[in-house]
Amino acid sequence: MASPVALVQGASRGLGLQFCRSLLRRSPTAHVIATCRNPENAKELLALQNENRNRLDVEKIDLALPRDIQGVAEKVKESGVSKLDLLINCAGVLHPSGRGETSLRDVSIEGLSTTLTTNAVGPLLMAKHFAPLLSKGSGEYGSKAQSKPHAGVIVNISARVGSILDNKGLGGWYSYRMSKAALNMATKNLSIELARGRSPVICVSVHPGTVNTDLSRPYHKSVPKDKIFTAEYSVECILKLVDGLTMEDTGKFLAWDGEPIPF
Amino acid sequence: MASPVALVQGASRGLGLQFCRSLLRRSPTAHVIATCRNPENAKELLALQNENRNRLDVEKIDLALPRDIQGVAEKVKESGVSKLDLLINCAGVLHPSGRGETSLRDVSIEGLSTTLTTNAVGPLLMAKHFAPLLSKGSGEYGSKAQSKPHAGVIVNISARVGSILDNKGLGGWYSYRMSKAALNMATKNLSIELARGRSPVICVSVHPGTVNTDLSRPYHKSVPKDKIFTAEYSVECILKLVDGLTMEDTGKFLAWDGEPIPF
Ligand SMILES: NC(=O)c1ccc[n+]([C@@H]2O[C@H](COP(=O)([O-])OP(=O)(O)OC[C@H]3O[C@@H](n4cnc5c(N)ncnc54)[C@H](OP(=O)(O)O)[C@@H]3O)[C@@H](O)[C@H]2O)c1
Ligand SMILES: NC(=O)c1ccc[n+]([C@@H]2O[C@H](COP(=O)([O-])OP(=O)(O)OC[C@H]3O[C@@H](n4cnc5c(N)ncnc54)[C@H](OP(=O)(O)O)[C@@H]3O)[C@@H](O)[C@H]2O)c1
Repeated sequence: MASPVALVQGASRGLGLQFCRSLLRRSPTAHVIATCRNPENAKELLALQNENRNRLDVEKIDLALPRDIQGVAEKVKESGVSKLDLLINCAGVLHPSGRGETSLRDVSIEGLSTTLTTNAVGPLLMAKHFAPLLSKGSGEYGSKAQSKPHAGVIVNISARVGSILDNKGLGGWYSYRMSKAALNMATKNLSIELARGRSPVICVSVHPGTVNTDLSRPYHKSVPKDKIFTAEYSVECILKLVDGLTMEDTGKFLAWDGEPIPF
Repeated sequence: MASPVALVQGASRGLGLQFCRSLLRRSPTAHVIATCRNPENAKELLALQNENRNRLDVEKIDLALPRDIQGVAEKVKESGVSKLDLLINCAGVLHPSGRGETSLRDVSIEGLSTTLTTNAVGPLLMAKHFAPLLSKGSGEYGSKAQSKPHAGVIVNISARVGSILDNKGLGGWYSYRMSKAALNMATKNLSIELARGRSPVICVSVHPGTVNTDLSRPYHKSVPKDKIFTAEYSVECILKLVDGLTMEDTGKFLAWDGEPIPF
């Protein structure tokens, strides 16, 4: 059996860091490529690398710099990695200020642009540059018991608040909501393009729940304590969900527990 | 009766130019503010202005320059315009190259950024800066026969291909589809924020049909001739649709004929 190869984008902290931990722990043969914009500062990721010599590579990708993405894609190929079974697009910002817009007063081109680039444009460029390796995946992630076998899997970490239909009560968070809606469209488009051909790639958007990370911290007081997941719990749920994915699921927007979310 | 005041953004050609024509023709007392990024070059708009002295103002707004938007909003207020009944966000690009991406190969950060800025960020900034005037509208557009009267109306010209649910067959057009999905989210968010208070503003996304303009021209050969609308027909349909709008409709994504489109 070929050993699984996964790439986690946005791995310095929060859910991305936890994805690296869990992927390494779940399979003793898994190889993980972790990217983040500031590897020197990613102390916990470097510590994890120390504990997993030869199994965890750390590369620098700032999503705002497309040349980083292209450069790492080339470097990975040149280093002899011949396939990718899983790409997790995890990095995300709520807003550069750390707080989502509560009203139009807070809306600015800078906030919108940074958030759209990080949450929607960057993940799509990742998919573009890593699609060739994903189409060489050997289906190590996702369900193998199926009529139309897949090569790789792309998981775009989205958010329930990116559902336009579900946005009924509060509104606000303009940049974040718009970026996740755009990301969900990217997922849908990718699912169509990458389903063609003989080595299809599954692509889904996943809502991780409300998770105890820096991103959501400013809002935790307004959420019941038992509704806030640890990063470990959220990631375990998502990896279980990924285990069951087939080409039937491609293009879907799913919550951590597999529940479909409308667009 | 107060005379209606409308602002058409993206009025140099295509649907935007036609909106100015039709709005002026429909009501002899209507005042129209037309914005475009290059007034000197907008010959047909300037000719229309010549025929409608005192009824058509032309202002320069490049959607990529937020200071243009803010500047015109201030200038309009200072010029004594005390309300806005209708804002039509019409400008849009398919892709800076003139052709939507057919596959990931064509996806670039430049294409994505320009398209997202023009089609989603710009319209939202327009809404931000003109919301105060719209909330002073006297309901001249939209239906007056209702329990919850509205002040102004925002029409964001979207596109059916911006529906994530509807994106099943072809895919492609990454930048355009993502930007219109983001715009639809902006519409939804605006509909929530601007429904609050005593002077609510209706906000809808509208698909104009396939229209004979520069934007869609490269694709006309693949559309049956009788399915391509003239700009005049599309605009008349949309203005009829606007006539019937009430606060019940706010947040919807509608086709030119009033048919709801799923997100
Ligand atoms: N936490 C929640 O409740 C929740 C709910 C729904 C969805 N999500 C989604 O989950 C994902 C992970 O978020 P999280 O909760 O783990 O947040 P987090 O702890 O704040 O982590 C955010 C990550 O994004 C990275 N990042 C930001 N901008 C970047 C850029 N330009 N280039 C590369 N990396 C960049 C950060 O890197 P640095 O360390 O360099 O800043 C960090 O690793 C996001 O997509 C978020 O939208 C989270
Ligand atoms: N035609 C169709 O079949 C169709 C179908 C669905 C949706 N739509 C939507 O309908 C709307 C109008 O498009 P159209 O068909 O009338 O296309 P069009 O004839 O190509 O007109 C596009 C307009 O957008 C303006 N524009 C582009 N970038 C701008 C910027 N940065 N700042 C200000 N203005 C800018 C153009 O101004 P310049 O003259 O300065 O370039 C022009 O006035 C768009 O939102 C489009 O997405 C059209």
